[in-house]
Amino acid sequence: MRAIVIHAAKDLRIEDQPEEQAGPGQVRLRLATGGVCGSDLHYYNHGGFGAVRLKQPMILGHEVSAYVEDCGPGVTGFQRGQLVAVSPSRPCGACRFCLEGLPNQCLNMRFYGSAMPFPHIQGAFRESLVADATQCVDATGLSAGEAAMAEPLAVTLHATTRAGGMLGKRVLVTGCGPIGVLSILSARRAGAAEIVATDLSDFTLSLARKAGADRVINTASDPDALAAYVPDKGYFDVLYECTGVAAALAGGIAALRPRGVILQLGLGGDMTLPMMAITAKELELRGSFRFHAEFAVGVALMQKGLIDVKPLITHSVALEHAEDAFRLASDRSQAMKAQIVFSG
Amino acid sequence: MRAIVIHAAKDLRIEDQPEEQAGPGQVRLRLATGGVCGSDLHYYNHGGFGAVRLKQPMILGHEVSAYVEDCGPGVTGFQRGQLVAVSPSRPCGACRFCLEGLPNQCLNMRFYGSAMPFPHIQGAFRESLVADATQCVDATGLSAGEAAMAEPLAVTLHATTRAGGMLGKRVLVTGCGPIGVLSILSARRAGAAEIVATDLSDFTLSLARKAGADRVINTASDPDALAAYVPDKGYFDVLYECTGVAAALAGGIAALRPRGVILQLGLGGDMTLPMMAITAKELELRGSFRFHAEFAVGVALMQKGLIDVKPLITHSVALEHAEDAFRLASDRSQAMKAQIVFSG
Amino acid sequence: MRAIVIHAAKDLRIEDQPEEQAGPGQVRLRLATGGVCGSDLHYYNHGGFGAVRLKQPMILGHEVSAYVEDCGPGVTGFQRGQLVAVSPSRPCGACRFCLEGLPNQCLNMRFYGSAMPFPHIQGAFRESLVADATQCVDATGLSAGEAAMAEPLAVTLHATTRAGGMLGKRVLVTGCGPIGVLSILSARRAGAAEIVATDLSDFTLSLARKAGADRVINTASDPDALAAYVPDKGYFDVLYECTGVAAALAGGIAALRPRGVILQLGLGGDMTLPMMAITAKELELRGSFRFHAEFAVGVALMQKGLIDVKPLITHSVALEHAEDAFRLASDRSQAMKAQIVFSG
Amino acid sequence: MRAIVIHAAKDLRIEDQPEEQAGPGQVRLRLATGGVCGSDLHYYNHGGFGAVRLKQPMILGHEVSAYVEDCGPGVTGFQRGQLVAVSPSRPCGACRFCLEGLPNQCLNMRFYGSAMPFPHIQGAFRESLVADATQCVDATGLSAGEAAMAEPLAVTLHATTRAGGMLGKRVLVTGCGPIGVLSILSARRAGAAEIVATDLSDFTLSLARKAGADRVINTASDPDALAAYVPDKGYFDVLYECTGVAAALAGGIAALRPRGVILQLGLGGDMTLPMMAITAKELELRGSFRFHAEFAVGVALMQKGLIDVKPLITHSVALEHAEDAFRLASDRSQAMKAQIVFSG
Repeated sequence: MRAIVIHAAKDLRIEDQPEEQAGPGQVRLRLATGGVCGSDLHYYNHGGFGAVRLKQPMILGHEVSAYVEDCGPGVTGFQRGQLVAVSPSRPCGACRFCLEGLPNQCLNMRFYGSAMPFPHIQGAFRESLVADATQCVDATGLSAGEAAMAEPLAVTLHATTRAGGMLGKRVLVTGCGPIGVLSILSARRAGAAEIVATDLSDFTLSLARKAGADRVINTASDPDALAAYVPDKGYFDVLYECTGVAAALAGGIAALRPRGVILQLGLGGDMTLPMMAITAKELELRGSFRFHAEFAVGVALMQKGLIDVKPLITHSVALEHAEDAFRLASDRSQAMKAQIVFSG
Repeated sequence: MRAIVIHAAKDLRIEDQPEEQAGPGQVRLRLATGGVCGSDLHYYNHGGFGAVRLKQPMILGHEVSAYVEDCGPGVTGFQRGQLVAVSPSRPCGACRFCLEGLPNQCLNMRFYGSAMPFPHIQGAFRESLVADATQCVDATGLSAGEAAMAEPLAVTLHATTRAGGMLGKRVLVTGCGPIGVLSILSARRAGAAEIVATDLSDFTLSLARKAGADRVINTASDPDALAAYVPDKGYFDVLYECTGVAAALAGGIAALRPRGVILQLGLGGDMTLPMMAITAKELELRGSFRFHAEFAVGVALMQKGLIDVKPLITHSVALEHAEDAFRLASDRSQAMKAQIVFSG
Repeated sequence: MRAIVIHAAKDLRIEDQPEEQAGPGQVRLRLATGGVCGSDLHYYNHGGFGAVRLKQPMILGHEVSAYVEDCGPGVTGFQRGQLVAVSPSRPCGACRFCLEGLPNQCLNMRFYGSAMPFPHIQGAFRESLVADATQCVDATGLSAGEAAMAEPLAVTLHATTRAGGMLGKRVLVTGCGPIGVLSILSARRAGAAEIVATDLSDFTLSLARKAGADRVINTASDPDALAAYVPDKGYFDVLYECTGVAAALAGGIAALRPRGVILQLGLGGDMTLPMMAITAKELELRGSFRFHAEFAVGVALMQKGLIDVKPLITHSVALEHAEDAFRLASDRSQAMKAQIVFSG
Repeated sequence: MRAIVIHAAKDLRIEDQPEEQAGPGQVRLRLATGGVCGSDLHYYNHGGFGAVRLKQPMILGHEVSAYVEDCGPGVTGFQRGQLVAVSPSRPCGACRFCLEGLPNQCLNMRFYGSAMPFPHIQGAFRESLVADATQCVDATGLSAGEAAMAEPLAVTLHATTRAGGMLGKRVLVTGCGPIGVLSILSARRAGAAEIVATDLSDFTLSLARKAGADRVINTASDPDALAAYVPDKGYFDVLYECTGVAAALAGGIAALRPRGVILQLGLGGDMTLPMMAITAKELELRGSFRFHAEFAVGVALMQKGLIDVKPLITHSVALEHAEDAFRLASDRSQAMKAQIVFSG
């Protein structure tokens, strides 16, 4: 079977690897679709990010859907050919954070396609994948592409949960890449009353509006538009900061009202914060990392038609052309989510 | 101008009363539509409820929309003929609870159509109404009937806010009168992943399903259906109890999972609770009373098409036939919300 | 070795039983002191409570301290003769509630001295006890009697945690048995600014005052004293209801201010609640059940002198006279906590 | 009467000013004691901080106690000679944040001794002061010096409330000036189980220990001590960062466990944060600004002996030597809180 392996920045190879068999509690899967995520792009374009660097070849990918091939001993409830969304999150279930109900903080996490520990945790961009049955969520009724969106959707659902009650809130989203637009969908699903989104690209802003933003602002052509939300200590209750750029964060903070909540989702290393504004307005910056229960919730919400991610999937390429997906996903002027089709 | 006045149980009169003029900060309104609420019905059918009894004639009504006629000194931002939803809540803005951000707990509340203080607070079922400008929320784009639903919708939005984050939650609604069905709409809007609703009437259950319930159960014909949710300490995260019947509450509690939240919205005086289950599962019973910011939020959500209350409005009668609305609203086998049309 | 075994109501026997050996991960203990708890009294006086009934002989006891005798394979960190507080809580660590961080809701809990499952879970009133090392918390610096108070203290610390932030709050405690007085200590430790306590016994009230209550009220001699706290929608932020009597609960509710929190710690089966007051004042009734992290926290707070439980230990009897402890503990006019000394 | 007026950096003058009379709702006070705060020092040493600059002469001071002289019309409940703690916080009680229960976010705040608006808000370092009766909290039983500590104590009580429940928590305090040591007292009062404090001065650390810190670390002589708390994703639940130095913040963040809370109390303008750690551990940075209800709570806790601030008052100087208090308060090697005695 073929897998997509990153060896170094810009050195992406499609390689043959041996297939594995499903052990007890496991399921052997035929991969359907895989989405290219920002962290995949960091490995592809830069060989890593911050202190996280590639030290050995690694299969990329953690946004995947798949078809069930066969089940290992003790696994029931799946049928051959069934579409599943596959969670890349594999907490140990035994460390103190797992036992505190924080599996995303697991001390022994093996998250697909991560170069953080060594040896690296291999990813899911491979034609044949053996996963734990607990990672597989039935995705019947969804397209393979939608099912592969469950992972980034879970990230923004988790962030939205971290924001606390969202019903009736005013929301600002800075940066409308996939995480920004999924933040719009998640905030709206959770009851946000008003959503304003900013970006530098008219293309992504058009998708932000389709996702439900009440107003979109191109900060390249209209750099002062947020100023209208600043007087009287600000306007928005929640900021999803999805650019990782300090200026966007500072602009968002100025537009937040007292006790507003900042969710920093765009990561760009250390950031300088206007601490006086955070203190004086008693803002709350809440870190949000990956997800846990939200993965299955996202699948269910998509199945019931309560969240529609289809407009975000702008490109699908065959495995043979996988590197195109990485190039496309790096260009926000034309692409939102680029996916790789492993099998139909 | 004519007003709907209750004198005693079953003694409802349409009477002529003098019009008032708009003072400073006020707006004179021509009433559009008024919905009959459960408390109106209690006055009509029983002359009150619990310790709250009619002691003098009282204009009923607190679910109203209206058209702006003219504005008093200092009021701007309204235009003659503009449709507004009128909040019946008039907190003093100066007592300690108002200053704590709990205006619904105001010590000097003057809520339309309440017999609790004496003299009673007169209601809003009158052709001409003078209200504070702060009570009036622009309802442009809504029908007059929808705008008159802003009040009961605000009740369930407030309860939903009281429940805490709703995203991904499993919800049980017992009792599908207007408050039950609006609870379904509110819970769904706030991100509930699964909603099960129960009632004794197939008619109301059909509207519950239309409002988004994933499953409806007629507990008359299928009394044991909830038992499936009881094992392993229960299933639901949140219970909206909208019957006021102890058996419904006890059944719902049995189906709640540990740390589940009970919102008791159906009121029937003192209630006996299975305290051992509440303790052992660490459930939380959270009182919810009226609303404050949620009134304007509800109007905005309806205007954006994010909540659709139209299917709930099953009956509209002219002012001349107002008593019909009270009779209809008392019969759950055929009516959900009955409204009175004061002017077109 | 001898154990205290309940066979039926009023049939308490001291029986010889074989000693056990410490297996892997376990510690063999020589019991020091055991406190008689309200549930022990229910078994002794009535053979159970509610639906929980004795169906076979059961060793009582779950408030115990002990000296380490020897450790099983893999256990380190203990020394022979070291005093430990022994937690009676043994969650499975693998069920879904354990993995959600709610071990006190464990589906497979084996809590010492519980007749709820069958066969019953045997208790800890035995001269020799083999426990998991994870149940044992170092209690160096405490007396054996204090260490045996860690369990009921953990109950009230857990309830206090459930109440949310306590700093600066006004607290009412109804019922000043051991749980009531420990609630006073816990609320004060957590920053309560004002504590009022009620009971029918001057003896227990004298201990309530010693524990830090700012005011104590004997509701037998001064039945109307709480009425002073009722006007303007009430006074207290938090109610620890420790009587299980509906009248005490209703009186406490009347004295709670809007958004006040009720912790129902006194259990007496189903209870009738003034639901209108709970709704109108938006009170919160929060169930609280046993504890988890609070057991070790309580030991640490006692060791640092931040909580002093010594005045509560009013009686200590030798194992030979164990039944006296049960008789004494049933009489609130002279006893607070009665303990049994197993070894010195 | 004499007042302490800052004209520019290092230009502090004691000037004669006319006395005022108490109007309706006001009290005329004879100042007892005034404490020098960090912001007073910024005006004295630098003429302001950040964008806040002196533009006209301003009376300094906002930590004061006073004796009642006489009351204006409508004021009852005070007696001549009574000691009161005077809150420097004067919210308008009418803006939207006041009505949301956030008076410390008042849009029209007039906080003593603030150069932020222009004309500046004059401070309270004056022999005769007219204040609103609502600013005055009875301080009977306290010394005038203790009563003057109510203001900085309220700051740390507010921050502690912002941290959420503190019972059983592990707390790190970086920086042991007055705010750091008051944070220790507040965290302990709220139930913190373990408190570690760091500073560069053995003198302040000796007071930190007296205030209840379980361990103090001089990071000058022992720079690596915090490293022991970093493994396995960190140790502390709450960080009170009281230095305003980025390195201290980064070190504290490394020692925080997942979901830990950061209270940034030391202000030094913009700060660079290790955003990756905040995200990956899902930390929460919560701004905390001034106080509201906590002022009276702090006085009550001191009156009941539940918080003891006396050891913090290291210097008292007569009004004639006021500038000595400013010099002393700038030197952490020998002074904690320096106070000025206006009258005995």
